[in-house]
Amino acid sequence: MEELKVLIETSSRHLHLTKEHLETLFGKGAVLHNKRELSQPGQFLTEEKVALIGPKRTIEGVSVLGPERKDTQIEISLTDARNLGVTIPVKESGDVAGSAPIKLKGPAGEVEISQGLIAAKRHIHMTPEDAEKYGFKDKEIVSVEVEGERSLVFNNVVLRVSEKFATAMHVDTDEANAAGVCGTVYGRVIRR
Amino acid sequence: MEELKVLIETSSRHLHLTKEHLETLFGKGAVLHNKRELSQPGQFLTEEKVALIGPKRTIEGVSVLGPERKDTQIEISLTDARNLGVTIPVKESGDVAGSAPIKLKGPAGEVEISQGLIAAKRHIHMTPEDAEKYGFKDKEIVSVEVEGERSLVFNNVVLRVSEKFATAMHVDTDEANAAGVCGTVYGRVIRR
Repeated sequence: MEELKVLIETSSRHLHLTKEHLETLFGKGAVLHNKRELSQPGQFLTEEKVALIGPKRTIEGVSVLGPERKDTQIEISLTDARNLGVTIPVKESGDVAGSAPIKLKGPAGEVEISQGLIAAKRHIHMTPEDAEKYGFKDKEIVSVEVEGERSLVFNNVVLRVSEKFATAMHVDTDEANAAGVCGTVYGRVIRR
Repeated sequence: MEELKVLIETSSRHLHLTKEHLETLFGKGAVLHNKRELSQPGQFLTEEKVALIGPKRTIEGVSVLGPERKDTQIEISLTDARNLGVTIPVKESGDVAGSAPIKLKGPAGEVEISQGLIAAKRHIHMTPEDAEKYGFKDKEIVSVEVEGERSLVFNNVVLRVSEKFATAMHVDTDEANAAGVCGTVYGRVIRR
């Protein structure tokens, strides 16, 4: 089977909002303004920014991603969590049950959410075509080797296959920095 | 040969100062006040704190480590570098030639240093006794596997042997977070 070299994309801190929280933070009838399409089909960076208010510090200017979602979810690094003064779990995106609370502040108001703050578990998005070509299955756990000065092998990388995806690995800023990922970098996917 | 499990210690951002810079920042005749001994013999955390002034942001309250050194050296994470708005090289501690400039501010004054700002290359300090027992050599490059939810294998870990050392691996906060290192964690040292 051919070896897959996967594009590694770094997710900066960001959040997804419900319609209700969007209106609380940005005002009644507020909508998200598409600033730039992201690599995953249908996902986009918006003009909207929110402050995260932690018990220790505030992080300003956190980008909202669109479209709206059924649950508000905030993805930050463990470095951010320490700065805010909160403890957060590492979880797969979409799995907000039991995650950490946080206060959000927008130009029109604030909202204190009881859960939704996570560090995203590193993962690979994959198209069904690539999964078939390279012999991977949805939910498979793989490792990914990054070369270079800060070369490392990420273990416990969950692979998710969907026709809604483009093939790419997502890591957070701590992970990107630990691996020296800067610019366009590919990782070698290793079967366990 | 027996397998070595090495204690992984996380180095938060910190700096080492020359006598001259210590006096510029803290006043004529200033001395470092020992707050707590560190794991490496003779090294200590001091009461003294300095601000790092970058073109984009300032990071306050960065701890000075003692004793004084012949070159001023500031060790930060790549996350910190991005916050400050600077680009820094990954270098071995002590190798400040060609590293980045930064402005330091203390209670008595400021100093703009032309080099000394680095991200520390991850490394293992090792006693000659452990090097002999486990079969390692000074300057050997090894890998270190960390288990757990964010399990990974750090490649390109430089091993330094000296009778001045205690055996421990040092990583920065980005690396610790990427590996989910929290509390007392040991890594398995792998020969290349």
